[in-house]
Parts: sequence; C-alpha cells; structure tokens
Amino acid sequence: MFIGVDLGGTNIAVGLVDGKCKLKCQKSRPTKPERGPEPIIRNIINLIDEVIDHHGITKKEVRAVGIGIPGLADPKTGDVIQCVNLNWTHVPLRKPMEEALGIPVFIDNDATLAGLAEYEIGSMKGKSSGVFMTIGTAIGGGIIIGGKIHTGYSGIGSEIGHMIVGENFYDCNCGNNGCLETFASGTALIKYTKKLIEEGNKNTIIMEKIGGDIDNLNGKIIFDSAEGGDELANKAVDRIAKYLAIGIINVTSVIDPEVFVLGGGISKAGPILLDRVRKEVLKRRYFKTLPVGNIELAQLGNEAGIIGAAMLGRHSI
Amino acid sequence: MFIGVDLGGTNIAVGLVDGKCKLKCQKSRPTKPERGPEPIIRNIINLIDEVIDHHGITKKEVRAVGIGIPGLADPKTGDVIQCVNLNWTHVPLRKPMEEALGIPVFIDNDATLAGLAEYEIGSMKGKSSGVFMTIGTAIGGGIIIGGKIHTGYSGIGSEIGHMIVGENFYDCNCGNNGCLETFASGTALIKYTKKLIEEGNKNTIIMEKIGGDIDNLNGKIIFDSAEGGDELANKAVDRIAKYLAIGIINVTSVIDPEVFVLGGGISKAGPILLDRVRKEVLKRRYFKTLPVGNIELAQLGNEAGIIGAAMLGRHSI
Repeated sequence: MFIGVDLGGTNIAVGLVDGKCKLKCQKSRPTKPERGPEPIIRNIINLIDEVIDHHGITKKEVRAVGIGIPGLADPKTGDVIQCVNLNWTHVPLRKPMEEALGIPVFIDNDATLAGLAEYEIGSMKGKSSGVFMTIGTAIGGGIIIGGKIHTGYSGIGSEIGHMIVGENFYDCNCGNNGCLETFASGTALIKYTKKLIEEGNKNTIIMEKIGGDIDNLNGKIIFDSAEGGDELANKAVDRIAKYLAIGIINVTSVIDPEVFVLGGGISKAGPILLDRVRKEVLKRRYFKTLPVGNIELAQLGNEAGIIGAAMLGRHSI
Repeated sequence: MFIGVDLGGTNIAVGLVDGKCKLKCQKSRPTKPERGPEPIIRNIINLIDEVIDHHGITKKEVRAVGIGIPGLADPKTGDVIQCVNLNWTHVPLRKPMEEALGIPVFIDNDATLAGLAEYEIGSMKGKSSGVFMTIGTAIGGGIIIGGKIHTGYSGIGSEIGHMIVGENFYDCNCGNNGCLETFASGTALIKYTKKLIEEGNKNTIIMEKIGGDIDNLNGKIIFDSAEGGDELANKAVDRIAKYLAIGIINVTSVIDPEVFVLGGGISKAGPILLDRVRKEVLKRRYFKTLPVGNIELAQLGNEAGIIGAAMLGRHSI
C-alpha cells in the first residue's frame, strides 16, 4: 500500500492507494496556508494516521508516502524550493515527515505527479514519453520520459507555463513578461476577455450572462458563449488555443514526446478546446510535413493528484 | 575504431576516431548538394574506404559508422526526414550505406552529435545532462540526458531554434514567425543590424568597416564594433544575448539541464557574448531565487561533428 498526499493551496487531500493505482480511501482538510508550514505538516501527518486507521491496516503495510506540492520541489533533498500560493520558500518536508512516520517520503510537483497518474492509468498509458499540461489558474507541466518523471537537474524543469512565448499586456507572477501561462491559462483567458470588454466591445452575450458584473466572468461562461457563436468569446478562445499550440510546438522542439495530455479546469471545456488546439498545432508546427505528438484530454479527475503522489512513492523506493 | 561522417551543406568530412575520441585521420570533399542524394551517398562510401585504406586498417576493425546530417533524422529507420540545405526529404541513408559497407550505420542531427562530442570530451563532460546550442546561420540543438542523446519520439526534438519566442519582422524558413533562430542566430544578428542601418541609423562605425556596402556586413564586424563601444552594434548584440537567454530559460523550463554549451560560429565572439547571455539569464529566470544551469562556451572546434558522429556509432552498437 502507498499513501498519496495532494497538498493544495485550498485543501490537503490524503489517500491510501494500492499497487494497482486503486484509491482505497481518502480524507481531506483545509490547508489554510496563512498558518505557515509547521501546523500544515502536522495536519498531513495526522491525516495519514487517520487514513491508515480508517482502512484498518498498520503503518508497516505502507511502503512509501508521496507528496505533490503546488510549486517547485527538490526531489534529491525532499525540500520545497518554492510554493507561491503557500508562501513557502526552502522548507524541509521529507525530513520532518520521515521522522514522524518512519516511512520513506518523496516529494515532487503536483502537475508532475498528475502526469505520472495519467501515465500509470490514463491518457499516457503505454507511451514511451508524454507531457501533461494542467491548464487552470496557472499552467503546470508533468514530463515522463521512458517511464520516469523528468524534472531536471535542480528540479525546476517541467515548468512549461514559464516558457517565454511573446510580449503580453500583463506580467507573470514569476516576474517575467511573456510567460505561456499569461497567454494560455484560465486566468489569462479571463483577463484577456475582460480586456476586450473593457476596451468597449460590449456587443457580446457574455455581458448578459455575467449580469453586467465583470467579476462574475469565468472560463465556463466564455467557452459556453463561444460555442453559442459569440464573436468576442470566440476571439478569446482562439487566442488560448493559439498559445496552447505554441506551448506544444515549443515543448516538441525540445523533447518531442509521443503524446500531450491536457488536464486542469480549462480542459473540461472538452472538444471546443481540443479541436482548436489540434488545428493550431498542425498550422504552427515547424516544417509542415513533420509529425507532432498526439494531443489528448486527461482521463483522470481530481484523484490524479493523490494517485500520482502514491505512485511517486512506488517508483522511488 | 569508429568512422564519423559530418555531412554538411558545403563539405562532406569523414574521419577515423578511436574509442578515446581521438581523431586519427580525416578526408573531405565538396558536397555539391545540387547533385541529389545518390552521388553524395556514393562519395561518403568512397571517403570511408579511403580513410580506412589510408590508416592501413581493414573494414573489420571498424565497429560502426555514425553520420551527422544538417537536418532531421529518424534514428529508428536511419532515414533522413528533412534537410533543407541539401534539399532532401525522406531519403534512406542507413540502408544503402550498410549494404555497401557491411558495417552498422547510425544517423542523427549534426548539432546533436556535436553536443555528444562536447559530452564525451568537451564542456559537458561528466555532467548528468546538458544542452548544446550551435549558433550559426541557424540555431541547432543537442540534448544529452543521463549520458544519452535525446531527440524524442519522432526524432524532431532538440530543434530549439524553432521554439516560438515572440513576433519578429521576418519569417523563419520553416514557415513560422517568431522562431528563436530568427532572433538569435548569426543570420538574425546581421538582418537586425541591417534593419537598424536601413532605418537611418548611419552613425555607426560599422558603416566605415563595411565600406558603405551593407552586403559586407558579418557577425565579426558587429561584435568587434560593439566591443569598441559602438551604440548601434551594442543594441544588436544586446538583442541576440536577450533572445539566447530566453532560449536558455525556455529550455530550462522544460528539461532543466545541468549545463548549457554555446557553440557554432557566433560563439567565437567569446566573452562579450557569454557575459551578456549569462547576465540576461539571471535577469530573466522565473523566480529570481532559482538556479539555472551553468552556461559555457564549447571546447571543441570543427572536428566536433566527426567525433560526435563516431561516438554515435560507439553509443549505438
């Protein structure tokens, strides 16, 4: 048995997963990041104990604990390098947890681990290499090469949301201008649509759907409006599709994976997004006769984080 | 013993290399790409025979032949996928050569193989991973991960010159706009400098150095002028350094290698380029506390192509 921990900015979710990636039971608790690392780490340890007790097994039956964090991890030291939405910088995580639990603990980026889950039982299954792109508030990446996670020498690779792909009208929270996630995340989609409306393009069904209050705008409203034929919404959806395609082309020009898998909240838009991204990729690949990896939607939902984290444990011991 | 073949747009160079990467003897001949593949392949075979004869060994002592091509290779089939400057598309190369020679033949991209040579005996030696960037007429890449070449599922990876990094004033020969090599290659440096001059910025020492004839412009003149304090030349050098840094940041955000090695004609500018690229990378990395791989100049010269090709043979058998 393996424990998977999905440490998010909002919730800590802990699950018990068997060797076949089956989630046996799960418990969660609010993260409340303002508390700082120490009580959060204590909460994770308590949740692990609860899950083990609840399933009626002993700690000895748990072979490893894997933790997905919403930021950069150093897999070698087990330290969190940086988590912007937890406000953690250089926080040891493996060490205090191993001391408390007596079980091997491994950590990695949450998108990387969701990618690992897709590799084990989802859209990347059986592929020699694949790149998982989680498109939500930001853009995260999970890279699998030859069945193994690749996060690079310092653990800062597979951060594909921070590839620079142009100049944009607002800066990324990393401090740069032009990061992929400022063009192609859910946040980017909403900001760009707001910008179009605020520039005076009020002739859109979106205005009605948000009751005239721009703060009610969300990704679902934009995609639904685009599907309904709304011009402004289609302009915004075309832009996110264009930049996701550029992201895919850029990753191809570095590592050329067999498959790309789109996950995260924005991927729930489904065919309208997938079809446009595929079309843009065909249009934008370098040399028009060349192949590009298949582009698919993620098969797993929220449980990918826990399952992937548990599988990190299985891969690492 | 191994044979390395560096098939370029101008010359075919063939060398005999021992297991310690020592080039024992070398012969070359003009490529004349207008002849088409068949006579060129025959020439390569003849040059291999000549090199073997000249060194007084037998074919049986040659364990493998490696060939570097100036384009995309499919390492699985041994076919050339595409070579723009040879005008080859889907040309079988391994098959006719193995039939003629009776020795195992392997092919890969020339920048990839120059990177392999840097890994064996140059700036990447002993590193867990590294990315070689050859900056000349175009930008090529060679990616080594865990001691192995990585060109991806279809052999179209490590083409880092075709990452899209912005919008540019001219299109790439691949058909896209915004490719890294249109901002950061030697060609890009010259085109941008010409553009500045043609826009009316004639107050530059460059005008004197080129005798007023814009067609005399080259990379060396631009770098020399920048070192001499010329404002226009410095603007052009700053731009190439900025975009090389963006290329390095983007590759880091995908695979985060331990080291970047700059090679090719433009890298001969030396410290003036290296210092500015390093400075720009520090400025532009995502999250300012993060590490980025070391950036070094290539240690090998023109012989890197032959040595790397020979080492492809050694790695592959």
